[in-house]
Amino acid sequence: MNLLAVRDFIRKHGLLEEGDTVLAGVSGGPDSLALLFILRALAKEMRLRLRIAHLDHGLRPESAAEARYVAALADKLKIPAVISRAELGKTAKKGSLEEACRNARLDFLLRAAKDAQADKIALGHNLDDQAETVLMRILRGTGLYGLAGILPKRVIYGHTIIRPLLGLRRREIEAYLKRKKVIPLRDASNAEDVFLRNRMRRKLLPFLEKEYNRNIKQALANLAEGAAYDYEFLGRCARRAMGKKGSRIALARLKKAHPAIRRIIFRQAIAAAQGDTRRITFQHIREIEDLLWNRPVGSVVNLPRGLTVTKKILTMNFSAPS
Amino acid sequence: MNLLAVRDFIRKHGLLEEGDTVLAGVSGGPDSLALLFILRALAKEMRLRLRIAHLDHGLRPESAAEARYVAALADKLKIPAVISRAELGKTAKKGSLEEACRNARLDFLLRAAKDAQADKIALGHNLDDQAETVLMRILRGTGLYGLAGILPKRVIYGHTIIRPLLGLRRREIEAYLKRKKVIPLRDASNAEDVFLRNRMRRKLLPFLEKEYNRNIKQALANLAEGAAYDYEFLGRCARRAMGKKGSRIALARLKKAHPAIRRIIFRQAIAAAQGDTRRITFQHIREIEDLLWNRPVGSVVNLPRGLTVTKKILTMNFSAPS
Repeated sequence: MNLLAVRDFIRKHGLLEEGDTVLAGVSGGPDSLALLFILRALAKEMRLRLRIAHLDHGLRPESAAEARYVAALADKLKIPAVISRAELGKTAKKGSLEEACRNARLDFLLRAAKDAQADKIALGHNLDDQAETVLMRILRGTGLYGLAGILPKRVIYGHTIIRPLLGLRRREIEAYLKRKKVIPLRDASNAEDVFLRNRMRRKLLPFLEKEYNRNIKQALANLAEGAAYDYEFLGRCARRAMGKKGSRIALARLKKAHPAIRRIIFRQAIAAAQGDTRRITFQHIREIEDLLWNRPVGSVVNLPRGLTVTKKILTMNFSAPS
Repeated sequence: MNLLAVRDFIRKHGLLEEGDTVLAGVSGGPDSLALLFILRALAKEMRLRLRIAHLDHGLRPESAAEARYVAALADKLKIPAVISRAELGKTAKKGSLEEACRNARLDFLLRAAKDAQADKIALGHNLDDQAETVLMRILRGTGLYGLAGILPKRVIYGHTIIRPLLGLRRREIEAYLKRKKVIPLRDASNAEDVFLRNRMRRKLLPFLEKEYNRNIKQALANLAEGAAYDYEFLGRCARRAMGKKGSRIALARLKKAHPAIRRIIFRQAIAAAQGDTRRITFQHIREIEDLLWNRPVGSVVNLPRGLTVTKKILTMNFSAPS
């Protein structure tokens, strides 16, 4: 039954094609093990070739043993595996450890996918992760962009990342593993937002389920699904309206754009200048709006990470520190 | 200072034009009294002509006295007023009382606006109302449509409804009245969603403010503002993609539409058949999607309030019971 739901989800979101080589990121926790066994069950009918990737962050004492566990499992299942070790604990500063972990993991996956000539990178996020992510963002403040939450399919630097389990509840995944008699490693703590995420998971979501809506997780996941479609469409419109020069945009174009599209053009210009839009809030976008409409030529808005937006005579220029 | 913020809000959202005749809905509670006094303060510079409308629902023993209070105030301020009395308590069934109230109030305002040849109908909703509305909808399950919350400006049956105070916090409104030495009637309980709204207001929002984000109300209001712009733009695209026949749509058009647009086309077709999209959930939209892609010609989806969607050979037909 889980298999059927996952197959539907894969088809609906166009996650896999016949003959794909799929690199699964396997931490050894419940989600990634379920992902691996489910992909394995689908491999024959979809003619998938599976690969396993595991990064040992080297941050916890048990991480070497976990890497050995994944290596042994790959061996037993006869699936080729890439296991690598990062030395983050020694190099990264404490404050930026989360970000360093995330980057190291992504770098590793992209490199491994390239080496394995993988068509897709598969990750194990589930519906509960999605609900937690969306709720965290709502509480902190977000827009359509943030509501889209975790995307079922996303292209990063030419690599396609897919999340086939995003429609499954965590408890369904645990039940599946139990049926399959697979004992996962304890869930390796996701370094990202770990404190806030745990409060969502252990306190706020159970409270909201009990007091307000038994199906709130599904409701948040639905919201994310709709927002992802909406944002994708608006993003296309914005790219069309923006023209080519990603980080220098004609004032005339900006002024005639619909406000919804203008805000996304700003985000795209920031991403063009700086790679992504992390730490950009609604308030920053508002300030750029104000620069456009109300401030004299020559004015500058300073954004996080050293990014500046300058109003010129004919254009608005977004530039990152070199 | 409040006056300045309201003036900015009015300009930003294009709520009022010079010379407008404005009909203010005045219940006598803090929001509508503040609205009245703020509009009065702006009346001279914007050359506004003010009118007051008050509907006595006749549901509470004190409602007749409240109507007299508003009439006396209008007299004192020398603003023409329309005061009317509905007999809802006697006619409406208990379950539909909320809806009957809402409809009676809207009917009354539209009629009064027509009689007064008013350009705008002004209502007193504030930022706290907005935050409560958005949070309620998130908890119950919503999409972009619901996230847009209370709109600063909305056209209903050719009448423009504006909410100039939507950017002000409830406590700012109370402080304004105190400064002006205006003593409002106790807040007449908003019949709509009164139970759930009170739990948002008294329990959940204060808890979230304390534990998660001191500025959560502003964050929810920002989310609503962004969602309103996004939905407005998507709605335009959907109307363009849909063509003329509002409640009968070519399958070919639907199939080639972007999923974000398709969902809004469905909503617009439901509104064309039935006047609005109340009680339509994400799950219903999903079912119509399934009808489009997976079910044979002749299949029917049954929606709330007797609405049916039928898959024909070339079209999808939305029809309300006659």
